[in-house]
Amino acid sequence: MEINIARLEQNLQKLGEFGRNKDDGIDRSLGSQADYEARNWLIEQGKLLGARVTVDAVANIWMRLEGTDPLLPPITVGSHHDAVANGGLYDGALGVLLGLEIMATLKEQGMPLKHAYQVVSFTAEEPNPFMISTMGSRSVSGKLSKEILKGAYSRENQKKLSQVILENGGNLEELEHSQLKQGSMEAFIECHIEQGRHLFEQRLPAAVVSVITGIYRETVKVFGEANHAGTTRMEHRHDALLAAAEGALALEEIVKKINRLDVTATVGTFSVFPNSANIIPGQVEFILDVRVPDEAIKEQIISAFGKAVERIEKKRNLQIQRSVLLDQLPVKMDIGIQKLLAESLVEQTGVCLADIPTQYGAPSLVSLAGHDAVHMSNFTRTAMLFVQSKDGKSHCPQEATDIEDILVAGNGLLQTILKLDAESPH
Amino acid sequence: MEINIARLEQNLQKLGEFGRNKDDGIDRSLGSQADYEARNWLIEQGKLLGARVTVDAVANIWMRLEGTDPLLPPITVGSHHDAVANGGLYDGALGVLLGLEIMATLKEQGMPLKHAYQVVSFTAEEPNPFMISTMGSRSVSGKLSKEILKGAYSRENQKKLSQVILENGGNLEELEHSQLKQGSMEAFIECHIEQGRHLFEQRLPAAVVSVITGIYRETVKVFGEANHAGTTRMEHRHDALLAAAEGALALEEIVKKINRLDVTATVGTFSVFPNSANIIPGQVEFILDVRVPDEAIKEQIISAFGKAVERIEKKRNLQIQRSVLLDQLPVKMDIGIQKLLAESLVEQTGVCLADIPTQYGAPSLVSLAGHDAVHMSNFTRTAMLFVQSKDGKSHCPQEATDIEDILVAGNGLLQTILKLDAESPH
Repeated sequence: MEINIARLEQNLQKLGEFGRNKDDGIDRSLGSQADYEARNWLIEQGKLLGARVTVDAVANIWMRLEGTDPLLPPITVGSHHDAVANGGLYDGALGVLLGLEIMATLKEQGMPLKHAYQVVSFTAEEPNPFMISTMGSRSVSGKLSKEILKGAYSRENQKKLSQVILENGGNLEELEHSQLKQGSMEAFIECHIEQGRHLFEQRLPAAVVSVITGIYRETVKVFGEANHAGTTRMEHRHDALLAAAEGALALEEIVKKINRLDVTATVGTFSVFPNSANIIPGQVEFILDVRVPDEAIKEQIISAFGKAVERIEKKRNLQIQRSVLLDQLPVKMDIGIQKLLAESLVEQTGVCLADIPTQYGAPSLVSLAGHDAVHMSNFTRTAMLFVQSKDGKSHCPQEATDIEDILVAGNGLLQTILKLDAESPH
Repeated sequence: MEINIARLEQNLQKLGEFGRNKDDGIDRSLGSQADYEARNWLIEQGKLLGARVTVDAVANIWMRLEGTDPLLPPITVGSHHDAVANGGLYDGALGVLLGLEIMATLKEQGMPLKHAYQVVSFTAEEPNPFMISTMGSRSVSGKLSKEILKGAYSRENQKKLSQVILENGGNLEELEHSQLKQGSMEAFIECHIEQGRHLFEQRLPAAVVSVITGIYRETVKVFGEANHAGTTRMEHRHDALLAAAEGALALEEIVKKINRLDVTATVGTFSVFPNSANIIPGQVEFILDVRVPDEAIKEQIISAFGKAVERIEKKRNLQIQRSVLLDQLPVKMDIGIQKLLAESLVEQTGVCLADIPTQYGAPSLVSLAGHDAVHMSNFTRTAMLFVQSKDGKSHCPQEATDIEDILVAGNGLLQTILKLDAESPH
């Protein structure tokens, strides 16, 4: 049994028409006409395949084909159909359309599964004008309250989220009915472009995700002393900007010493007060973002950074305040499904392994970005599959993935679903 | 002959009432009611002393007492009466009121000078809502065109500068008539609080200014590569923020190695793009401000910084663009007047010298802030005198100067004027 790669390719191009802009990028965030049209097109595709299509309270789209055993919960494949501003053809879309392609293949084969097979396309996974990302998957896993959702509005046109959700077939008032329960699914598998360069550099088509990174963020505030840039001697200064500069560089050094492919640290925002050419900065506030596959490494980094901060405070005689902004734990993917995915990928390609980590015979990667799968892992066995993205591009019009690589991943995922269906008698 | 310190103290308090706010600070910038009232009060004081008072095209106030020889140009003393937002009692005001106190003393002595004696209070020396500082002194020295002045407006209430100048007795249309000419003055001397801590720490009442600092500013733009904070490995990054951090720290190190009391370097502004917690900064723009008493030191700093920039560009594989924003040369004060001031200060106090530099027997300092005197130096012999400011405070309500220190400076300045009058037969 094999997917029809030409049909998948065609569907990728078709979905990519919704929101296409003059730079050949895609603008398709929640609330846009393009998002609305993409949804309708997806629902139509599901219906054409004979799936039962439902739109839940937060407007996630569920498309379900029944299996031979009505007592078994569905195997679910999916991702999201929205895109970042000026995004590309593959991020999110590939996971949904591969799900539909597998549905089409199963349908052509007379639906050989015992389990129901389900495709989901989540609402607003990407950053969007409502300032709530992974909206759909967090809502159905109970991590976003009705109050938060009802209070949200578009920063672009002030439209209320509740209204936009209504227009797209959902209804926030019914949120509790859409919340997923333990055991309501056999498994969830998300296929996604890598967004990094590991597979591209090693010329590998695909990899199994072992862990979705933990994301830890701190707000760091440096309280120095604003003073005249001319009349304050160098040795009398408590320069908040220089202290913050040392902090950012210390963090880089700490993480470079750890020297792992699956650990990063970034200072992405940096605000200076009063930010005037002739005044020594009195205050700086910055946010650090640390990504780690396990908690021990996080603790190691936080502790080393704490020592660096103390050193800087002493050296410059100023105060540095740290507060945790986000502490999202790493999420391990289901071992059983990882094994099946690995086995299936190797069957497809005899995948040639190079310098990236391997588990169960196939390339294994940590996802250093968050995904809807993080939230699905709360109530079902969850796994992810990465496909190569050329030059590691993502969130930009230059996203590109070879159709041959998609074929490997797609057939690997199809075989995994068949095996999963066979091995779970329940 | 001595000044009347009680009268001067009284006048400092009186002028300080104009613009006094609830924090005991002073709000008196050009265009405010307080500035208008302070001007009228100053003009009244000049008239009471029998001075001929004129308000020039840019509303600078000139108050002139004739000497015995009508062929000699005036000796001028002055500063500015405006204040920064929430400023203090002494910055600017002291220079003007000491000028008036010397006028009162000369008047009481039957005006013993051959030269005319003139007091000037310049318009808008401080940063102000019209975004043009040292407005009065730059205008009369031909450094600000009529077009620039006529185009200026208040950022607070959109009122045109030309209108505000009219309301304060000036007229921008007559700017060319107010421009000063070589030889139109015998000398200009400005007395000012130090704005630094040198005199305070050494417990010295006053010092002679040797040089007004050169101010050199560069805009530095770092062009790195914006990328995903999670999926971009540490060794693949071209992080503009870390490069800029290294640049700012390198500048500090260079200037600390030079290790001079009269050299400073500051990075006061720092803007990050896109400034998002989960994106590696792609661009950073910052401004560096370097203050030096001579050009050779400036060149040394610029050259060392250039080498640091090259090192950073190579290390991080990114581009750094530098462009000169301001290159105001250091201005040497007149040696002859410096000697007279030094001699007169020593006569007053037998000034006890500690660890700060000495020239001609008196403490000698570089002014690390700009002053109206910079612009007066273009067409007359110019000098400055610093008085101690407690704790080095300036531009804040906490400005404070002991009356004993003002007495030393005031009598020193009076004696200098008498000597200058005696030695210049012309």
